[in-house]
Amino acid sequence: MPRTIRVTFLPGGEKATVPPGTILSDAAQQAGVRMSLPCGGRGICGKCVVTIRQGEVSPPTELESEQLDDQQLQQHQRLACQARALGDVVVAVPVSSRVIGVKSLESDIIAGVQLEPNVTRQWLVLTEPSLDDQRSDLQRLVDALSGDFTGLQPSPQALRALPSALRAGNFRVCATMVGRRLVDVAPAATAGPCLGAAVDIGTTTVVAYIVDLDSGEILGSSASHNPQTRHGADVISRIEFANSHEEGLAALHQEALQVVNETIAAALQQIGAEPRDVFEVTVVGNTCMHHLFLGLEPRYLAEAPYVPVASAPVNLQAGELGLDVHPCANVFCLPCIAGFVGADTVGVMTAQKITRQARPVLAIDIGTNGEVALWSGERLLVASCAAGPAFEGAQIEFGMVAAPGAIDHVHFDGAQITLTTIDDAPPRGICGSGLFDAMAVALQAGIVDPSGRFVPNADGLPPDIAARLQGEGNDRRIVLAEGDDGRHIALTQRDVRQIQLAKGAVSAAVQLLLEEAGLTVEQLDKIVIAGAFGSYINPASALRIGLFPSLPLEKVQVVGNAAGAGAILALISMAEREYACHVARLAEHVELMRKPQFQMTFMETMLFPGR
Amino acid sequence: MPRTIRVTFLPGGEKATVPPGTILSDAAQQAGVRMSLPCGGRGICGKCVVTIRQGEVSPPTELESEQLDDQQLQQHQRLACQARALGDVVVAVPVSSRVIGVKSLESDIIAGVQLEPNVTRQWLVLTEPSLDDQRSDLQRLVDALSGDFTGLQPSPQALRALPSALRAGNFRVCATMVGRRLVDVAPAATAGPCLGAAVDIGTTTVVAYIVDLDSGEILGSSASHNPQTRHGADVISRIEFANSHEEGLAALHQEALQVVNETIAAALQQIGAEPRDVFEVTVVGNTCMHHLFLGLEPRYLAEAPYVPVASAPVNLQAGELGLDVHPCANVFCLPCIAGFVGADTVGVMTAQKITRQARPVLAIDIGTNGEVALWSGERLLVASCAAGPAFEGAQIEFGMVAAPGAIDHVHFDGAQITLTTIDDAPPRGICGSGLFDAMAVALQAGIVDPSGRFVPNADGLPPDIAARLQGEGNDRRIVLAEGDDGRHIALTQRDVRQIQLAKGAVSAAVQLLLEEAGLTVEQLDKIVIAGAFGSYINPASALRIGLFPSLPLEKVQVVGNAAGAGAILALISMAEREYACHVARLAEHVELMRKPQFQMTFMETMLFPGR
Repeated sequence: MPRTIRVTFLPGGEKATVPPGTILSDAAQQAGVRMSLPCGGRGICGKCVVTIRQGEVSPPTELESEQLDDQQLQQHQRLACQARALGDVVVAVPVSSRVIGVKSLESDIIAGVQLEPNVTRQWLVLTEPSLDDQRSDLQRLVDALSGDFTGLQPSPQALRALPSALRAGNFRVCATMVGRRLVDVAPAATAGPCLGAAVDIGTTTVVAYIVDLDSGEILGSSASHNPQTRHGADVISRIEFANSHEEGLAALHQEALQVVNETIAAALQQIGAEPRDVFEVTVVGNTCMHHLFLGLEPRYLAEAPYVPVASAPVNLQAGELGLDVHPCANVFCLPCIAGFVGADTVGVMTAQKITRQARPVLAIDIGTNGEVALWSGERLLVASCAAGPAFEGAQIEFGMVAAPGAIDHVHFDGAQITLTTIDDAPPRGICGSGLFDAMAVALQAGIVDPSGRFVPNADGLPPDIAARLQGEGNDRRIVLAEGDDGRHIALTQRDVRQIQLAKGAVSAAVQLLLEEAGLTVEQLDKIVIAGAFGSYINPASALRIGLFPSLPLEKVQVVGNAAGAGAILALISMAEREYACHVARLAEHVELMRKPQFQMTFMETMLFPGR
Repeated sequence: MPRTIRVTFLPGGEKATVPPGTILSDAAQQAGVRMSLPCGGRGICGKCVVTIRQGEVSPPTELESEQLDDQQLQQHQRLACQARALGDVVVAVPVSSRVIGVKSLESDIIAGVQLEPNVTRQWLVLTEPSLDDQRSDLQRLVDALSGDFTGLQPSPQALRALPSALRAGNFRVCATMVGRRLVDVAPAATAGPCLGAAVDIGTTTVVAYIVDLDSGEILGSSASHNPQTRHGADVISRIEFANSHEEGLAALHQEALQVVNETIAAALQQIGAEPRDVFEVTVVGNTCMHHLFLGLEPRYLAEAPYVPVASAPVNLQAGELGLDVHPCANVFCLPCIAGFVGADTVGVMTAQKITRQARPVLAIDIGTNGEVALWSGERLLVASCAAGPAFEGAQIEFGMVAAPGAIDHVHFDGAQITLTTIDDAPPRGICGSGLFDAMAVALQAGIVDPSGRFVPNADGLPPDIAARLQGEGNDRRIVLAEGDDGRHIALTQRDVRQIQLAKGAVSAAVQLLLEEAGLTVEQLDKIVIAGAFGSYINPASALRIGLFPSLPLEKVQVVGNAAGAGAILALISMAEREYACHVARLAEHVELMRKPQFQMTFMETMLFPGR
């Protein structure tokens, strides 16, 4: 017998060099092939079926003979956790036996976090009852669980499924616990995957991530337009809608549930999983979205003294809320901090491990509502700013969401303007990142002065720029492109005023928090730009228009949907969930409007930096 | 000013002699008038309104002026917890301001138990929010609670009601917690009573008790016929029905829920309360009733090795089960012990504090299914016996439930038989207690011999007895009375055989448990007869027919529905609830059928004692 053998995995061709007799799943791990081993390689779940294409392996074990039928064995199908390689072998690993994660900014944030979810699943082999062992079905199962499950409470559904699951599964079962509650029992052979969903409910966009709670991998994600926008683009108009319509809150609540259900369903469909495979849902969103999702009265968020109904973390059962996942799934809403600093900000701070940074950090979550968090090294200050929906394309004459045909980047080389559109489609409008770029170009080319006013005439401007200027007064504009419908897609004077209001609000918040903490811009170690929107902007353009104070570009870090990443962290790790609650308790909310210098600061920050 | 004054309470005329300046509610307590003081006499709830009929009291306090309108004050209505008697006064206490308990065997059992329910209610006066105090509504409430409520989780319904309850109640609210869950918030002025329901689901009869969780008093009770009897009189036939019909279990489950809902509703109606005033429900019943109530598969209870789905205590939410009480009420099902020794037996043992007795005690719960528990002073042994429905009137030719016209007592003075019927109505049939008496009379008069056989002829019998004998063989009978429809209501040979089977089963269980514990009958300190049925029987008749071993009559104690009393104890006291769980864990189940001597013992115990 050779002292080492080689195991090759198809279709990727990954290789492991191992001693003869090595279990195939161990070889796979060594080769870097991520196999699905929900039962921990105990041969109970039958989820790690592979096909031996070449070479000799050990004869089928008793467990394999039970899990695989004759036809499968004849086709050289085996369980990777049971079969041992006896010589050089080639093994095909089908997609169904793999864990396939999705790479993204969010998966970078959660990489390396210790998997420790609220949902636990155990694969059990129980002894059968007899006259000498008359324990109830439940007691039999509880006694077999490893870990401390004293006081385990079963759901009625789990209890009802228990006797037939035990007997159909020949007393081999898969038990799923949410916290200390037994919520699902299935015969080992037919148990589905163990999934969680992390949801970010934005004012404009709702994103859901599906996470494999066995491996901690993000398996899929989906984004949807928030249908509540039909009642208003920002949170204030939604609250007004709720206040002024009899069934307004009920309608907004139902729309929130529906879009979350649809977004989760779309993400599940990508990976061929069922809603009832989802055992926990974590949720972030601003305080208004949080309230509407839970069906809580948002009225007092918008009236002084701006008090939420609840800011503490909320746990409730999916069934009682009306979420279309496993009915006993736990829904964990991350805590909010204040009426306008919500669980989304808590998610961002969690994902950034903000209080674990040795040096001062500023995090800006750009969305329809903007939030700013400043960790001074000692204090954690948070504030909200009504950025308005300008950054997401609303209230901008040619604004649109980031869809094919949206102008997403604009460049000026000193003489000419060039631009790109999403998918290189004919231009249809301007999305947020394009808007930042266009504004930066307008400043850079001298079309708009630091006060935000378009120059009255084209004197001294490069010919390409001069040719693009049209209109007068509030209709003054610079044409960026001709749309496929013949319209001139432009940045207008009105748009510039909207941008000034939005960036002024964010910038004032940053400045006032820095003052509150007694810090200067130079003392900041980094500025983190979060928000799905933020991940597409050009940081240089953001700096050019003065979204945040002047500082070296390398200190600006774009981190994608960090709020969503915070929800994922709370989903896969109870320690991270506790950290999120800790951060929320620690945060000091600064009510910017109460600061005497607020108006003055805001007037200044609405101006653009000079050339 | 006199040194003492006299306060007289109407309509009862109870009197208290107190110092001038005494609060009226304190005087009421001294006079033995039980007043309703849900908020603990803090003037918040407005539930203790009384009318001053004579004499001088202190002027209205600020709290009274808020709670009572001008008309009430003009009519001399006052809050008893605020007004002070300044001289001799006469005070009328309306029913709505009293706690009126129902006296019964069950109220005797629970008397003196320290009130310590799972449901807690607090009356709070909160500070209003301001820009300097932006705590959320929930945090504001939690901070005001007394006692340890860290980690309090609100129900979605409570959260949704919270903002308007705070503001409608001018920040004076009544908060109701079930365990560590906030389930209800109401303005202090409009909060309803705080009730619990204890339910005993018998195979034949369902009983519900409504308990005031502020005072621990039983306010009302109701009993209903279990509609499942249409599918069979005993548990085995119900299980067979579930096994043999596609939707059999679902039907039995729905019937159980429906009858429990109706019985609770009927009891609530007696006291003018609403289903949503009930915040906890405790449930006892035999293991089969327990399973059907929860919708659990009963099949394996009836097949060796007779394993329950769950025997541990179960907590679940009323809303998810489908009980028509407060949707977030907790439903606590007392634990079961084995397939045929259920939560009803646990209830009996709890009510009897069985393991706290210094000397051996035997408890017999007589129902359609019979259970026997023996506390030896060291060991707690339990066993079941299929008494069958004979004791409840079923399978008896003229058997009927204890309703008007049922023969309930039969007496023989050595020459003549006399009898009574319920409500002195014309006789319609025989109920359980009448059946025991009739059987005892038949033995005493020598009509039936110890083997259970009717004597073939009337030789030597008193003329009244001889004249009542009719029929031959299995139709041989003794006529007890002529019904209003002209039928001869009689005890038949077949009836005697049914009684022998039933009493033989109970008696064999008693004898085998005594043997198992190594005790003789003489060592028993007492025998407790429980069961709604048991409370109507004549213990002398039970002794005469040999239901339990021969012992002095003063050792036999009839305790009424002790199973129901156990459910009430678990409702009003967490310590008693824990004791019930302790008793269930301690109990050793003896499977009588496995004992080699079972058949022989049963043959012997089916015989009647000699004259």
